[in-house]
Parts: sequence; C-alpha cells; structure tokens
Amino acid sequence: MKKILVLHGPNLNLLGKREPEIYGSMTLADINELLYQRGRQDEVLIDAVQSNHEGVLVDTIQSAAEQGYQFIIFNAAAFTHYSIALRDAIAGVTVPVIEVHLSNIHKREEFRHHSVIAPVVMGQICGFGADSYLAALEIVLRKLK
Amino acid sequence: MKKILVLHGPNLNLLGKREPEIYGSMTLADINELLYQRGRQDEVLIDAVQSNHEGVLVDTIQSAAEQGYQFIIFNAAAFTHYSIALRDAIAGVTVPVIEVHLSNIHKREEFRHHSVIAPVVMGQICGFGADSYLAALEIVLRKLK
Amino acid sequence: MKKILVLHGPNLNLLGKREPEIYGSMTLADINELLYQRGRQDEVLIDAVQSNHEGVLVDTIQSAAEQGYQFIIFNAAAFTHYSIALRDAIAGVTVPVIEVHLSNIHKREEFRHHSVIAPVVMGQICGFGADSYLAALEIVLRKLK
Amino acid sequence: MKKILVLHGPNLNLLGKREPEIYGSMTLADINELLYQRGRQDEVLIDAVQSNHEGVLVDTIQSAAEQGYQFIIFNAAAFTHYSIALRDAIAGVTVPVIEVHLSNIHKREEFRHHSVIAPVVMGQICGFGADSYLAALEIVLRKLK
Amino acid sequence: MKKILVLHGPNLNLLGKREPEIYGSMTLADINELLYQRGRQDEVLIDAVQSNHEGVLVDTIQSAAEQGYQFIIFNAAAFTHYSIALRDAIAGVTVPVIEVHLSNIHKREEFRHHSVIAPVVMGQICGFGADSYLAALEIVLRKLK
Amino acid sequence: MKKILVLHGPNLNLLGKREPEIYGSMTLADINELLYQRGRQDEVLIDAVQSNHEGVLVDTIQSAAEQGYQFIIFNAAAFTHYSIALRDAIAGVTVPVIEVHLSNIHKREEFRHHSVIAPVVMGQICGFGADSYLAALEIVLRKLK
Amino acid sequence: MKKILVLHGPNLNLLGKREPEIYGSMTLADINELLYQRGRQDEVLIDAVQSNHEGVLVDTIQSAAEQGYQFIIFNAAAFTHYSIALRDAIAGVTVPVIEVHLSNIHKREEFRHHSVIAPVVMGQICGFGADSYLAALEIVLRKLK
Amino acid sequence: MKKILVLHGPNLNLLGKREPEIYGSMTLADINELLYQRGRQDEVLIDAVQSNHEGVLVDTIQSAAEQGYQFIIFNAAAFTHYSIALRDAIAGVTVPVIEVHLSNIHKREEFRHHSVIAPVVMGQICGFGADSYLAALEIVLRKLK
Amino acid sequence: MKKILVLHGPNLNLLGKREPEIYGSMTLADINELLYQRGRQDEVLIDAVQSNHEGVLVDTIQSAAEQGYQFIIFNAAAFTHYSIALRDAIAGVTVPVIEVHLSNIHKREEFRHHSVIAPVVMGQICGFGADSYLAALEIVLRKLK
Amino acid sequence: MKKILVLHGPNLNLLGKREPEIYGSMTLADINELLYQRGRQDEVLIDAVQSNHEGVLVDTIQSAAEQGYQFIIFNAAAFTHYSIALRDAIAGVTVPVIEVHLSNIHKREEFRHHSVIAPVVMGQICGFGADSYLAALEIVLRKLK
Amino acid sequence: MKKILVLHGPNLNLLGKREPEIYGSMTLADINELLYQRGRQDEVLIDAVQSNHEGVLVDTIQSAAEQGYQFIIFNAAAFTHYSIALRDAIAGVTVPVIEVHLSNIHKREEFRHHSVIAPVVMGQICGFGADSYLAALEIVLRKLK
Amino acid sequence: MKKILVLHGPNLNLLGKREPEIYGSMTLADINELLYQRGRQDEVLIDAVQSNHEGVLVDTIQSAAEQGYQFIIFNAAAFTHYSIALRDAIAGVTVPVIEVHLSNIHKREEFRHHSVIAPVVMGQICGFGADSYLAALEIVLRKLK
Repeated sequence: MKKILVLHGPNLNLLGKREPEIYGSMTLADINELLYQRGRQDEVLIDAVQSNHEGVLVDTIQSAAEQGYQFIIFNAAAFTHYSIALRDAIAGVTVPVIEVHLSNIHKREEFRHHSVIAPVVMGQICGFGADSYLAALEIVLRKLK
Repeated sequence: MKKILVLHGPNLNLLGKREPEIYGSMTLADINELLYQRGRQDEVLIDAVQSNHEGVLVDTIQSAAEQGYQFIIFNAAAFTHYSIALRDAIAGVTVPVIEVHLSNIHKREEFRHHSVIAPVVMGQICGFGADSYLAALEIVLRKLK
Repeated sequence: MKKILVLHGPNLNLLGKREPEIYGSMTLADINELLYQRGRQDEVLIDAVQSNHEGVLVDTIQSAAEQGYQFIIFNAAAFTHYSIALRDAIAGVTVPVIEVHLSNIHKREEFRHHSVIAPVVMGQICGFGADSYLAALEIVLRKLK
Repeated sequence: MKKILVLHGPNLNLLGKREPEIYGSMTLADINELLYQRGRQDEVLIDAVQSNHEGVLVDTIQSAAEQGYQFIIFNAAAFTHYSIALRDAIAGVTVPVIEVHLSNIHKREEFRHHSVIAPVVMGQICGFGADSYLAALEIVLRKLK
Repeated sequence: MKKILVLHGPNLNLLGKREPEIYGSMTLADINELLYQRGRQDEVLIDAVQSNHEGVLVDTIQSAAEQGYQFIIFNAAAFTHYSIALRDAIAGVTVPVIEVHLSNIHKREEFRHHSVIAPVVMGQICGFGADSYLAALEIVLRKLK
Repeated sequence: MKKILVLHGPNLNLLGKREPEIYGSMTLADINELLYQRGRQDEVLIDAVQSNHEGVLVDTIQSAAEQGYQFIIFNAAAFTHYSIALRDAIAGVTVPVIEVHLSNIHKREEFRHHSVIAPVVMGQICGFGADSYLAALEIVLRKLK
Repeated sequence: MKKILVLHGPNLNLLGKREPEIYGSMTLADINELLYQRGRQDEVLIDAVQSNHEGVLVDTIQSAAEQGYQFIIFNAAAFTHYSIALRDAIAGVTVPVIEVHLSNIHKREEFRHHSVIAPVVMGQICGFGADSYLAALEIVLRKLK
Repeated sequence: MKKILVLHGPNLNLLGKREPEIYGSMTLADINELLYQRGRQDEVLIDAVQSNHEGVLVDTIQSAAEQGYQFIIFNAAAFTHYSIALRDAIAGVTVPVIEVHLSNIHKREEFRHHSVIAPVVMGQICGFGADSYLAALEIVLRKLK
Repeated sequence: MKKILVLHGPNLNLLGKREPEIYGSMTLADINELLYQRGRQDEVLIDAVQSNHEGVLVDTIQSAAEQGYQFIIFNAAAFTHYSIALRDAIAGVTVPVIEVHLSNIHKREEFRHHSVIAPVVMGQICGFGADSYLAALEIVLRKLK
Repeated sequence: MKKILVLHGPNLNLLGKREPEIYGSMTLADINELLYQRGRQDEVLIDAVQSNHEGVLVDTIQSAAEQGYQFIIFNAAAFTHYSIALRDAIAGVTVPVIEVHLSNIHKREEFRHHSVIAPVVMGQICGFGADSYLAALEIVLRKLK
Repeated sequence: MKKILVLHGPNLNLLGKREPEIYGSMTLADINELLYQRGRQDEVLIDAVQSNHEGVLVDTIQSAAEQGYQFIIFNAAAFTHYSIALRDAIAGVTVPVIEVHLSNIHKREEFRHHSVIAPVVMGQICGFGADSYLAALEIVLRKLK
Repeated sequence: MKKILVLHGPNLNLLGKREPEIYGSMTLADINELLYQRGRQDEVLIDAVQSNHEGVLVDTIQSAAEQGYQFIIFNAAAFTHYSIALRDAIAGVTVPVIEVHLSNIHKREEFRHHSVIAPVVMGQICGFGADSYLAALEIVLRKLK
C-alpha cells in the first residue's frame, strides 16, 4: 500500500485557537481527518506528524524513505523562513516534498515572503487554508497513479 | 452554467517550443484541453485566453465579472514580476484570482522569486507544470460546489 | 482656442467601483465633467483620454503637440511606478506635463512611494481626490493667461 | 471669519536671494502677499509664519487649532526630510495640513525625494513655485465653502 | 493563587560563568531567588524554567495558559534574534509576554539590535542586569492588582 | 535630598489628546503626578521638564549634574530616531540616563524601531504606557538605596 | 536571400527631435537608410520595425524565425530596463539577438545602467550613435558568410 | 589522557548518501574512524557526536570542559548560518573551538558564505572534504604538545 | 578690518570634560584663544560662537555676510550628520564655509562617516584636534591676502 | 600614418588556455593578427600591448597621445570591475577609448556586470569573442576617415 | 622532485613588526623556515615568494605550472578582498591553490570578511597564525602521496 | 635634519593637463615647489614621489621610517577608494600619515566619497587644491617643533 507523510511544523497544534482571522477555525485534527478521508478514497495511507522541535522534523524527514513514504506534504510554518537545517534535510533525501501554507504568505509580514526551503521542494501551494493541503494531495495522488 | 476564466500571460503561446527543460513539452493547447475536460466533468465552462499585451490582460480581467466568470486562474508569466497595472486590475475587481506558475519560480533567477500580484490574489501554486493549473481548478471546483 | 489633454492611466476606468475606501465614489466621467466645466469657464478646451495600454499612452503623449495641446495633466496610475517608456515619452516632447494622483501615494504601500516620471514632469499633486486634477487645471489656466 | 495658517520652514526667509535658479526670484513677502490677496477675495484670513527653529514650528502647529486656524499650508523645507518631531506634531493635531514645495523635489538630490511628513498630511503639491502655495489655497478654499 | 512564569532561553544556565563583563557575576539561581522573594511579598507564585532547546520553549509557552500562568517574563537570549517559531508561539497564546534582557542589546553587535519577538510582546526591558527581570515583575504585579 | 530629572521630548505635551489609541488617555500631568507620589514615598525629589526644542533638551541634560540630579529618566519621543545631538549630550555627561517609551516602538512604523540614543543610555523600557516611567523609577530608586 | 530584422523600441520614432544632446540629430529613417545600404552591399535584406507597444515587440520577436529572419538587432530603449516579457521572448526563440543602444547607457541615470535583456542576448553594443547599429550589422554579416 | 571532542551538526549523518557531488562518498563513520586512528597515534582520545538538534549541540558544548575535553572540532553544518544560540554557547565556554566544513562554502549558495560562529571560533577550515577535519586535528595535536 | 566667524555646534561647550579620550583635554575657550591669537598676528578679527540650537546656528550663518564676515570655519558636531537645514543655510549664503572636526570621523561609528554639509562647503579638515581649526584658519588667511 | 593602440589587461595572455568554454580557443596572438590584417587594409598601424600590471596599463594610456595613437581599444579584463586608477587615466587623457570584452559580461557572475570604466569611455562592446575587437576597430576606422 | 609554491601577498614582509597583536611576532622568514623543514621531511621542495605588486603575483601564478609547481599555498593578504585579477589568474591555471590567512578574518573589520578568491580556490584556512600555512602544507603533502 | 615624505598617487602626474575644472591648472611640479619652499623656511627636508603603481607606493611607505622620514603627506588619488594594500601598509608602519585631496571628494561621484585609508591615517584634508598639501605641511611642522 502507498504511503504519504503529512508533516506539520511549529505552533500548528494551536490551529483553531491561534489567530483564527489568519488561520481559520479548523483544528489540526480536522485537517488531518480531511486528508485521511481523501487518502482512503484512493487506498493510499496518510500519516500526519506535528512537532515544535526542528530536530524532530529533521529526523522525521531523514527517515521517511526508510519508513516507506513516497511523498511528503510539508507545512514548515515558522521554520519556513530560517531553518536551513530543514532545507538541507529535504535536499538530502530522495522523497519529493511539496511545501504548503494555510495563509497567503505574500499578504503578511515582509519576513514571511521568503521561504528558505522553496528552492529544494517540488512546488509550493499557499493561501487556500485546508485546501492547500488537499490540492497538494491531489497532485500527489495523480503522480502515484 | 458556471464559468471559469483561464488567463495565460506573455510568451506562454511558445509553450512546448520555448526552453522545454524549464517548461516541459506540453503546448498551451494541451494544457487548455486538460482543463476543458476537467471542467466538463463538473459541468463548468472553462475559457482560456492568452495574450502578450499587458493592456489586453488588464481589459480581460476588468470585464470578467460582467462576462459571467466566477473565478480567474491566472499565469501572469513575465508580468508577474513588474506589472503593477495587473496587480491593480486584480485588486479592483471582485472576481477572485488564483496565481499559477508552471515552474518553481524559487528555483530560478533571483528576479523571478518576487511576485507583485501575490499580495492581491487568493493564493499561489507553482512548480507542478500543467498540474499547477489543475490543482487550481480543483480548488475552484470545490469552492463552486 | 487653447487645448489641454487630461490623460488617465490603467484601471482608472474602474473608478467609483474599485476600492472606494482609497479612491472615493466619483466615477471617471464625474471627474471629467468637473474638468470640462472648469475649462469652459475660461474658454479652454479639455479632452480626456483613458487607456489600460502603455503603448497607447506613449503614442498619445507623443502626438499631443501636433494635435495642438498646450499642457498634459497626467494620472499615470500603476504605470507611475515602472514605466520608463512613459518617462522617456514625457522627456521627449515639449508639451509640459503635470503629474496627478487621487490618493496620497505616500500613505500607501512602499512601492507606490516612488514615481519614475516625477523627475521629468513640471510638478506633482497627490492626495486630494478629484481636487488633485482641479488644482492642476488651475495652475495650467494661470499659465495660459 | 475663517482662518488659514501658512507655515514656512527653515531658510525660506532667504527666498529671492538663495539659489534663484532653483527657487526663483520672488521673495517670501511676495508669496505671502499673493496669498493674502487671494484670501481676501473669499473673505478668509491668512496668516504667514516663518521660522528656522524646528521647536517653534512644532509649537505653532500644536497651537493652531486653539488659535482658530482651520487648515495649515506647510512648506517644511529642509525639515521635510528628517523632522519626525514635525511629523508627530502634524499627526497629533486635528487641523488638516497640506504639504507644499516650491521646487520639484524629485528632480533634485536623492535625499530630497523622501518626505517624512508626507504620510501624515492630506496631500502634497510640488514643483510650481509660488503656484504650489496658490494651488493648495484653492483646494482649501473649496473645502471651506 | 496567582502564577507567573519566568522563562530563560539558551545559555542563560551559564550565567555568572559566561562573559561576566557583559552579563555580570550573578548566577541564574541568584536571579530566580530574587524573583521568588519579590513574588512571595505579594503572594504570587513564580516559576522559573530554563532551556537551551527552542522546541521546549515553544511547548512551555503554548501550555502556559493551561497551567494557570497569567503572565510570562521571557528572556529569549540568542533566540531573540531569529526564532520565528517562538514569535509565533507568543502571538498564538493569550497570556501576555514581557521581553527582558540582562544587557543593553543596542550597545552590542549589530545582529543583537533586532528582536523578532518584540512586535508581539507587550513591552521590552533591557540593560539593567537582574533589575530587568525585577522591573518586569513590578509591572506584572501592578497589573495583577 | 536626592533628585531625579524626568525629561519629556517633543509632542508629549499633547498626551491624552494625541492619538489616544497609541498613547492612552492619561495626560502628561497625570504621569508626572504618579512619579512625584512614588518619589515622595522614598523621599526623593522628582522634577519633570517637557520641551519641543532639541536645543533646550540638550542644555537641560548638560546642566543636570550641576543642578544636582543623580539620574535622568528620558522619553526622547520623535528625537529618539534622529537627534545625534541628544546622543552626544547623553554620552558627554556623567549622569546616567534611562530611555523610556510609552508605546512598544517595535510594533509601529519601521523608522521608530531604531533609537540613536539607545547605545549610550543605561537601558531601555518600552511598551507599558505610564508604567514604563514607573518601572524606570523603581530601578533608579533601588540604585539610589 | 538572407534577412535581418532591426527592431526599434519605444520613443525611438522621436529620434532627431527628442533630446538631441543625448541621441544626436539623425532621424530613425536616416539610421534605417544607412542599414539598408550596407545590407544591399552584401545582398542581405534588412527590415526595420518600430513600436511603442511592448506586446507588439514580443509578437514580432516570436514570429521572426517563421518570417525567415536569421538575426535580430534590437534597441529595446526604455524597455531595456524593466520588460521581463521581452527578455522571456528573446530567451524563448532561437534567432540570435544583438542588443544595441545609441548612447552610452553607463554615463546616464543609475536606472539606465541595468539591462534585463543583456543576460539573454548574444552581445551588447552601446555608445556609438548610429554606429552602434552598424557595428552590430558588421558582426551579423560576418557570421552570415 | 588528553581528550578532543568532534561535533557534527544536522544532516551530517546522511553523509555518503546526501548530494555526493558536493559532500563526497565517505560516510560519517569513515571520517570518525580516520580521526580516531590519527588520535591514537598521539595517544589522544577522540570522541565524535552527531545531532540534528540545536539544543543537544548547545548542551554538549556547554558540558565539554566539565567532561575533560581540551578542544572542540565543530562542523555546525546548516546551523553555521543562523544559530546564534550555538555562537553564544561557544563564546560562553573556555574550551577553544575550530570550525570545519567539508565543502568550500564560498563556492555554494550566497547564504552559505556567511558563518555566524566564525567570529567566536579560533579559526576556520573549509573545502578539503574529510581532510578539513584532519587538518584541524593536526593543529590541535600541535597545540597539545 | 577683515572678520572671520568660528562657529561651534552642539555639545562643544562640554569640551575638555566630555569623552577626553576622543576630544582631548583642551576647552573650547582654549581653542578660541589660540584662534584669536593667530588672527591678531594677521590683524584679522575672529569671533567665536557656540550653540546647541540648530535654529540659532542657521540664523547665525544667514546673517554672517551682513555682519561683515568673509569666511566661516564651522564645526557642526552632531548636526554634521543630519541637519539638512544647516546644509541649506550654507548653500544659501555667499560666505564660504570650511568644515572642521576635532576627531577623525572615519575612525568612529559608522553614522559619523557621512557629512550632509560636506557637498556644500569649500573643503573639510578632520582628525587633528585643535589643529583642525588652526589649519582651516591658515587656509583662510592665505585666501584673504 | 594613423596609429591605434590595442590594450589587453590581466590574464589575457592565457587566452586559448584559460577557461576556453568562456573565452574560446583563439590565442591573443591570433586576435592581434586579425586586427593587424584589418588595419593594413586601411593603412592604419595597430600596436597591441598586454600587461598584468595595473600601473603599466595606466602609464601606457597616459603616454598614448604623445606616442601618436589616435584611439585606444581596451579590454581591461579583471581591472574593469575595480580599477579606479585606470578610470582616472582614461578620463585624464584626450585619446578616446573603446571598451571591449570577449564574453557577454552580463551572463556571468554578478560582480562582472559592473564596469568602473564604462562611464568614461566612448562606448562598450561585449559578447562577440574576437569580433568584439573587430567591431571596435570598424568603428574607429570609420571615425578616422 | 615535487615542488610547492608558497605565495605571500602585500605587507607580509612586515610580519613580526606590523600590528603584532593581530599577526603575532614571527617574521616571514620564520614561517618560511618552518615550511622548508616540513617539506624536507617528505622530500618536497618548497619555494616562497613575497610581493607587494599585484602584477608580480599574477605573473607568478600564471607561470607556476610551467615552473613545475604542483600546488600553490597562497596568502593574498589585502588583495584577498578586491583583486579580481588574482582571482582570474587562479581560475585560469590548472595548479590547485589553497587560500590561507594568519588571522581569523571573520573577527576583523567587515570588509575583511569577504574574499574574492575564495570561490576559485580548493579550500580556505584562517585564524591559526603560522599553523594556517602548516595545515595547508599537511593537506598538500597528503594529496601528493 | 628632519625629513617629510610627500607621496602622490596615480594620474597625479597628469595634473594641470587632466580635467582642470576639477583639479586646477597647477602642475605637480608647481605643488612640489611650493612645499619645498615652505619646508626650507623651517629647515625641514621635503621629498616628493609620484607613482602610478600600487606596489611602488606600498614599498615606499614601508621603507619610509628606515629612510628617516618622520611624516608622510599622502594623496592616494584613485587608490583612496579601493587599495586595501595601501591601507595595510599605512597601518603597518609607525610613521604617521596625513591624507590629502585636491578636490572636495564629497562633491563628486558617489564612489569617491569613501576612503579605505581614512580609518588608519591621522587625519584628512580635502577640497583646497594645493592648499590641502600646504595645510597638511603646517600641521606637520607644528608637530615637529
């Protein structure tokens, strides 16, 4: 059975509570549930992991291939803007990574316009709330066919 | 019947011929056909327009609402990086716009990393070739339901 | 009879509909009417042209002298910030140009603070809504006496 | 009777003597006289004050409302480019302020292109010599009707 | 009973040993003791936590409200200058945070002048050694009355 | 008897009237009264001076030692961001200076994030309204014991 | 018969009238005549096109190969400095392009020093008036032998 | 017996697998073995630690002296470019640190040219693959004699 | 009799007391005395004025010609770096001005390297303590012969 | 007889050996021979000099007029990007200088895009290999007629 | 017999006399002697050359291969930061070059942090005094085995 | 007998011929003669050296002490703006250096405003033509008494 890893970065566990005018009222569990359902339609297993620890995210990306994941859908959250360690982890593995963001990062503070991981991912989707994850999943499912 | 406008900016008519190592071998007609097919599945009409003229693109965006379009999927190509006139046109109409790019603009020349229209669109998708358009269409179709 | 050209740049045809909290509720026709009336008081003919096409605006400026205009009142809108072609057109003709803006461009986004045409016009008026055009017209009428 | 304050910043007392190729040959008294005359036509009292002292200008702006002025026409001269104290004074009072400059500041040295008070005034007029003041006065008189 | 969390960032456990010409000779235990004493005077419970791990600090801030803390006094140390994850954690919780620094960060290297968390905290106190913490505590105690 | 000088910079005399959403509704007299009361508790004399004139503030700082002040609590307001003359005055006297701001300057316009006096003061407190002054006073009183 | 396209950008139709101290007194017709003559010597057909419309220039470059041109000599004028659409058009066709300028762009305003098309053309010639075009033509003729 | 700590930062555990065209085909175990052998020649104990966690690296540096290490040879990998926490840890301990890199960081992306730890280490060696570590070890062994 | 004005800017009245490691132990009176003596040798009258008020310095420069001064030797101190009002005053009068500094401003903080008045003075002398003034005086005396 | 000086800067003696993918396989002797032949056709003497020494190049430019040269064709190579001494030498002599480059410097590293001598030469030709020199020679020969 | 060239740039002949707190008290002769001895151990000939003349250093690098050197150890000193001529010389020869510095250039003035030759050398060693040269030599000797 | 070295940098041998509107009509010999005369009055020997070769200037500065010079008066001309080798030479010798310029470098091109040697000289004099050298000499003669 095919497997996809959904990786959520720091503070995304606050979703639904944190600044709902920016991030919406869905919780992380709600988003994960949407993804699990869509995966089941195509008989693809989806696992979701959240961590506030950069090191844990690096470890998880490094071991993804070995654990049988064929794609990573990654919302690096705040780490998007400075974690070169995550960038190097992505560049150092063969599993392709899709970068997603809930909000349109270009409408927000200047420092959120720049992503240090963007040059090493396959592509980037931002601004559609939970639909950012779902659109990434659609792309992955098409590639897996 | 619902209608979606797909708008292609300058030089996209060269697609398939121009720098295929960056843009792939599909022609613009191929991409449009994929979108038309997907639209028909949901009984949504899709119209595609390409122009090398900034003024024509501005006029087209301005008249989209009046012509009954409910969404615009827009690849502004080179204009992405300097056409404030297109930015103002998007900001000045009520039809929501999704920005798409075939290539991952963050892997390319520095001047292509910045989009002047990004802060006024709903969201942005880049790096997946023709799938960038299709993912945008999936999001629109879900919103139209 | 003396003639003045009023030139409106891209998206100004949306006036009254587009972002009224910035640009006010008057339409372009309303503004033109105010200017025509004021012109008639001094028996000066005023013609108003709007275009979303940079090339059309360049052509119009180039032919203004030949068409008998003695002054151009120009709201370059979005082109203000990047059209070096318009700058060169203004610098290349002998008809004096006055730059006007409806809004106070210094209260808005950073990229709107800079005008590439400002160094080649006679002077600049911004921030007074339709009164920006009228104040420019007063200055022109005084010069024409 | 309605009252308007015309405020002249540092070195404007040298007008007519100082760099006439930039500022023209009119003296400050000449400009004030033009403004007084125009004011009398509409039965509006105009007072003109000049100072080389930033603190005096701040004090004058702060007390303008109390002294019955309904508008301030302000040429901040050199202070335009660095006096945040004047900016805060303008932002801190309810009397609206119009910024004027004799010369087109965008044709001059780089450091004169930027105005620290522009974001807190109603609008800005520059480049028309004494006519910059008169155009500001026309706008004010129209508002006062 | 009211509770305040004092949070110490990376390398502050070295206090007293590390660069005493910058940070003074008090240890972290000394500072905590001063704070505990002052808290007891007003019958407010003060807990102090130190960590060199960004993720641990993010987790601690996220759970502060749930654990009953009403204020956080936070010396983010080196993380002050780059941890957007901590910034987002602070912005994502409702417990108000006061930023403190032992040294006057503006007297030190250029890169220490900028704080990425400053725009999301209530206020900032720097330069008074252990008194920076105590002054923050005084402010909190006054608010809690 | 010990003496502390509280120095208020330009436009602070407008407090309570000027932009209350930023600066609160207390007047300068209210703040001074709070400080006088707290001073009397410890039998320390507090004098408060406000001026819109940079030169007056420089003179006052220069003569503070001679007049018997042992500390200066200074809100330089707008001068914070450009008055190198005030910076040099502070650096040139032996009386220690504490910099305070009512608002959190890091939440405001970019140009307010930088203080030219910060590198020459003992420390800085910002963001707590009148409490910024009081916290500074607490620190001074502790030092004077 | 071999064919070369000479392409003139915006405002070059003003040549001879516009700022003759920079661009000389020859008209565009004079320059074209010189090029036609030189072409006839080698029995090479030369066609010259001028347009103020960016879109027209993009279209012309795109269709050059199909129309049998083997080289393009291109003076992009003002578009040199911002038209990424022209850059992409040049990069997207196989006909080699030589960039020419009448004036030495490095002696003029700062913003004219940078050419966005330079990295995608074969080479650049500037500063020799009409001789810039002729030198480009010599190079082309040698390549065509 | 003398002891040296070799510290490897994030993603170095991927060595041999990750981007071998940049980092070579040796694994981290291979490099460590080379270092152990060279240490044994001089009867110096060498311990090697790798972590993807910034906090773990900070803790390890802080405790190095206490654990009897006389030198640290440190490849901070991605953290080189942003971890001020590691910089402060190095500056806060008395054990001297030598910075090493496998690749010539100046031949790579712009953001890899800058090291935030370079100003606080003894010296830096980059570009020689595993020989970067060995050269650092030679220097240390000479100092230990 | 010929007259020279020596003008001292803000905080120079502290000379001898303020940061003697930078400015030396001579007082302003000492420096003035040296200049008076040298003037008397050539029967030239020298007047020295010091002020901490920018406005007073502007007024003094403006009235220098009228008061019969043929040269101004000016140490603008802190105002050197931001007072465009002083720059305009110097540019607006016909009396030539020589800029002097006690210290070598290029050895000090970055912000002291730039002088806004340098482009409008005759020349600049810095770094020689009181000898900076004396060297300026020698140059003036030679010009007056 | 008329004389032209061809001046080759540092490392051009390596031509044919050094980075042939950038500079081609012709040697400097080959290029000189092409130029000599073309000169002989018009009975113009051409002398070619190469030096790796900046001072020698400055001396050669300074003495060119005296030695009877009427034009200099100059490839400053690496010195193009920093030798202000060469810039001043060119500006200080009356012999006109044409700047040439073998490669298109705008396609190469960022630091090669800027020429410090460009503003003082007659014009610039780059990107055509040996043809860059020949095109310069054609222009010179036409001027000499 | 194998040969290595050690190349010392400008002012290194002053070593031992010049700023010993930065460069140590060893003379250049002392360093050379250390290198000669180490070379003799492995029967490798080492030649050392010092010059203050950029052109001489370029010539020396160009002729190194021809003279039988297999490696160059190069301390470019001040030229490190601006000599593109040296950079091109290094890039233009096949002999590999190792860049060394006595001091840790990252602890010094801003302009010393950047090396224009770093991107074209094999690797860089800085901060270990004479040991920087010796470590480079160890690396070379290992490569030569 | 005391000795002073006057050192003239590149292109100063052209003085009187080169751009006389900037540098005046005196030749270098004229300036030297003025200095020799003034030296003889005080029985101080003055030697003047000019070179277009950076290496020669470095050598000359290095050997100045040994040759008995007690001061160097140095016009580095173009090298002022980039020769770090000269900066290091000045910093590396004990003979004090005074920097002089004929023109006011702050009135000229942007790149001439910055001097890389200014931070290591005693002081700087610019803008007085030959009087810049004479003023430097006066200062030296006073120090030598």
